[in-house]
Amino acid sequence: MASQHATQVILASRPTTARAGLENFRVETIPMPVPEAGQVLLRIDTLSLDPYMRGRMSDAKSYAKPAELGQPMPGESVATVLESHSTDLQPGDVVLAQAGWRSHAALPAAGLKMLALDGIQASAYLGVLGMPGFTAWSGLEVIGKPKAGETLVVGAATGPVGSLVGQLARHAGLRAVGIAGGPKKCAYLLDEPGFSAAIDHRSPDFAEQLQAACPDGIDIYFENIGGAVWNAVVPLLNQYARVPVCGLMAQQSGKLQHDSSTDYLAATMRAVLTRSLQIRGFINYEFTAQYFDAFLRDVSALLRAGKIKHLEDVTVGLDNAPQAFLNMIDGRNFGKVLIQVASS
Amino acid sequence: MASQHATQVILASRPTTARAGLENFRVETIPMPVPEAGQVLLRIDTLSLDPYMRGRMSDAKSYAKPAELGQPMPGESVATVLESHSTDLQPGDVVLAQAGWRSHAALPAAGLKMLALDGIQASAYLGVLGMPGFTAWSGLEVIGKPKAGETLVVGAATGPVGSLVGQLARHAGLRAVGIAGGPKKCAYLLDEPGFSAAIDHRSPDFAEQLQAACPDGIDIYFENIGGAVWNAVVPLLNQYARVPVCGLMAQQSGKLQHDSSTDYLAATMRAVLTRSLQIRGFINYEFTAQYFDAFLRDVSALLRAGKIKHLEDVTVGLDNAPQAFLNMIDGRNFGKVLIQVASS
Repeated sequence: MASQHATQVILASRPTTARAGLENFRVETIPMPVPEAGQVLLRIDTLSLDPYMRGRMSDAKSYAKPAELGQPMPGESVATVLESHSTDLQPGDVVLAQAGWRSHAALPAAGLKMLALDGIQASAYLGVLGMPGFTAWSGLEVIGKPKAGETLVVGAATGPVGSLVGQLARHAGLRAVGIAGGPKKCAYLLDEPGFSAAIDHRSPDFAEQLQAACPDGIDIYFENIGGAVWNAVVPLLNQYARVPVCGLMAQQSGKLQHDSSTDYLAATMRAVLTRSLQIRGFINYEFTAQYFDAFLRDVSALLRAGKIKHLEDVTVGLDNAPQAFLNMIDGRNFGKVLIQVASS
Repeated sequence: MASQHATQVILASRPTTARAGLENFRVETIPMPVPEAGQVLLRIDTLSLDPYMRGRMSDAKSYAKPAELGQPMPGESVATVLESHSTDLQPGDVVLAQAGWRSHAALPAAGLKMLALDGIQASAYLGVLGMPGFTAWSGLEVIGKPKAGETLVVGAATGPVGSLVGQLARHAGLRAVGIAGGPKKCAYLLDEPGFSAAIDHRSPDFAEQLQAACPDGIDIYFENIGGAVWNAVVPLLNQYARVPVCGLMAQQSGKLQHDSSTDYLAATMRAVLTRSLQIRGFINYEFTAQYFDAFLRDVSALLRAGKIKHLEDVTVGLDNAPQAFLNMIDGRNFGKVLIQVASS
């Protein structure tokens, strides 16, 4: 073993601001964990940072229990087995683990998932083939019910969810319009994943640009940002439009607020009624039992065939995870946010 | 024929207030219509007044074309054939007709629907067995998907939609909680149609009363009122709750507004996300082709068996239709609003 010590990032305090801050985290050095019978010692290779973690930092009522104060932040990783006290796994096996923000962990082998790495890089299982990918696939397929010729709009379109939503929609014959922050992200959307249009939500004429990009209106708005973008989307939604809602990061972080001069709720409900809209919140695990295998089959085939692009925004070093997390909340990441934890 | 003249109520001007006013209507006397080949002359017996008509008076974009200025207000009626120039109908036949606010009409026989009156009064086809009834049934069955043991809340619960929603829910084994305006309506709900609880939305402690009436939260909120009631409902909605939206009369009429001190849209979207809610607007005709026959079979059986109560609020005389309509917009009706047009 390379080291007798391990590192972990603790939730030191609950945020008092919408954005959270570095002061809410604490990096600790602890003795190397020792696996018991049935457990394995894991070296965390890559940690996934995801917007849902901001919700866990607060103790407001939500769909998941809050993270515990004084404990490591929760999170999913790709990890390598260093030492095994189980017949199920061998040293060198690569697994998916709910190990939190840690460099090493001793965990029961039974809760770990071996990864199929034939032609697929391990970190894809944290993004396009993992929770963000399944969020994209299930929201689009199960709620969005895409039909060829329709128009789809998705926000945070260079992120792991938005990017896959747009590409899956394009493969299904839809017109895909991406919303992102800044000209660099918009240029990428038009080049790489083949969106039909890309709109910068920071533009002063954002609403007019969005309307111009959707000449036939919007049939599916995949809501993963929240806040003011919604007000530009509502007037464009067609009769029977579907709105899967999987995230409201802009709203959570205090950006993209609605101004208070208008009763936007009344306008939204009027649109719901007069255009028979469906708005449906979801957390991907609602659909895991019924659909995860179909998702993995579909998207890994597209990935192996080179038909899906995915961007990774990698920061080296677990110590840097808090800052990388805050950058993501601020929308300053460019692709799926990952922390390279192990140096090897 | 009793008279050589007919009466009609014209849309004289579009409303400039949320409520509309008497000045927007004009009662006219015209020569008796003369049926052509293939047509019948109808005597309108009973005219149905419905909240959707307020929307038709405006020319704002909606799900239906606005009513035309200078033309009779649109509306559905039960009518008797006086004179037939078609082999399909005979004098004395009772039909359902889209004849507008008129005492008589000459219409193609092909567009009229003969009514099955065995044990059912004709006016039921304007309420519990008509458009309001189908709105209740289809919103509840197709969107609400009721399950025994769940809790349902419905507004305007003495109205033709809300009353049937509550009774159908109760027959399906749900706890039904009705919202209505004033103690008289609430007392009726507890007596006649067997709601488990009835809450007066005018009570200063409405939100607390609603919470107390829903100890296990709300699984289905059938939204047919709009406005401030929604803000009391949102905190009580359970995970995977369903919200069929078929009307926003309170919002349309300018009552029950949201105050502007809070971003209610953000709160609503947060609830949608964290509790995987479904909000789905609908107009009953979306479901007509697939479900109308099942509705008619189900509800007419319940009606003949005496298991469904329905209230009618009847005003005599077509001249009085504008005032009765405005009373309905103000929530001062007590049951399905009908105009008895023919004196016989």
